[in-house]
Amino acid sequence: MRKAVVLLSGGLDSATVLALALRQGYACHALSVDYGQRHRVELDAAVRVAHTLGAVEQKTIRIDLTAFGGSALTDSSIAVPTGGVQKTGIPVTYVPARNTIMLSLAIAWAEVLVADDLFFGANAVDYSGYPDCRPEYMRAFERMANLATKAAVEGRRLTLHTPIIAMSKAQIIEEGVKLGVDYGMTVSCYQADAEGRACGECDSCRLRRAGFEAAGVADPTRYFTAPA
Amino acid sequence: MRKAVVLLSGGLDSATVLALALRQGYACHALSVDYGQRHRVELDAAVRVAHTLGAVEQKTIRIDLTAFGGSALTDSSIAVPTGGVQKTGIPVTYVPARNTIMLSLAIAWAEVLVADDLFFGANAVDYSGYPDCRPEYMRAFERMANLATKAAVEGRRLTLHTPIIAMSKAQIIEEGVKLGVDYGMTVSCYQADAEGRACGECDSCRLRRAGFEAAGVADPTRYFTAPA
Repeated sequence: MRKAVVLLSGGLDSATVLALALRQGYACHALSVDYGQRHRVELDAAVRVAHTLGAVEQKTIRIDLTAFGGSALTDSSIAVPTGGVQKTGIPVTYVPARNTIMLSLAIAWAEVLVADDLFFGANAVDYSGYPDCRPEYMRAFERMANLATKAAVEGRRLTLHTPIIAMSKAQIIEEGVKLGVDYGMTVSCYQADAEGRACGECDSCRLRRAGFEAAGVADPTRYFTAPA
Repeated sequence: MRKAVVLLSGGLDSATVLALALRQGYACHALSVDYGQRHRVELDAAVRVAHTLGAVEQKTIRIDLTAFGGSALTDSSIAVPTGGVQKTGIPVTYVPARNTIMLSLAIAWAEVLVADDLFFGANAVDYSGYPDCRPEYMRAFERMANLATKAAVEGRRLTLHTPIIAMSKAQIIEEGVKLGVDYGMTVSCYQADAEGRACGECDSCRLRRAGFEAAGVADPTRYFTAPA
């Protein structure tokens, strides 16, 4: 059975990607990163999702990106926008180099596990504002990774799979429902409370709710305020 | 004054790179990474070196790579080789994806600081066994970084400077001596003791000592055993 490292945040997208990787027959090692995010409760969701879907193991690595700040998710003095998804520019919820840091940790673990496959739930459709969610970034990361490691020098090749990068949120949800993912276990909200209940107003909540609506799937999200 | 992020381990190479970046007129923000390395005492040296040479500030970020292991530096059950520098292959002191992880943290900080320059003390001559010290890796990382960040999307360009990548250890030392670096402050040994004294027998000690000999510079290193 081929091993894969799957980045698992505890949100909807990465849960779907884990289900897809398992369906493809990979023995999945789920990696979550506690980077000091506001919505740290998503990490509890990651543990539940990994266990329920059937990952071989799940690890949470801690790295304190609040030391750098520069994002509403890692600096408590910057508020999470709740007025609606902005149409242009990069939102303040973008965390500098976060995806690069998480993928770097994934290649480290992959090398130790002797795994040649990484799965990452980046999505370029509903989060088009984030530079490190673009397909050209993914290709550049994969190319770099294939020069970075001992495995690469020894002739093995690492593949970075981004199976949902071109899907709409509705398509991701439809795919996950087919695979039996219980999205009630996942936490997407940028300011979820300690019980994992969602605000219903941040970009992540809005995109998620619109996805359930567009897919015609009942939204299992627990909200702490009534959705707008 | 242009800002730069300089990766500073506390060893000889990165101290020289910091001195070079300062000489070029950069306001230097020194970044050290506590990744669970055996020779954690090098981080005390990083603080001293940053302060003495004149960095604007120094930060140490903690990320526990012992969670993955796979290296003599991050797994206490793998011994540091002391029998002489191996001629071929990648030594067990190689830490999977370490340079990628450290450079990823550097681009995160650079983005928050609005710095367009990174300095990294990789060396491809005396450490040719490490895949992530090769010039082709550095170019691929820089290319990826220029797709990863908000700065890149906004048209700014990040440059990864590796000024000592093609120098011999003796040339690095000659350069540093000209710049007034006191190498007695630095710690290179993979198994330095709590006072920063060196074993004299690991690869890092052997390469360093040979560098001082070849440069005709008195070795200021404090050893806890007599060098072989």
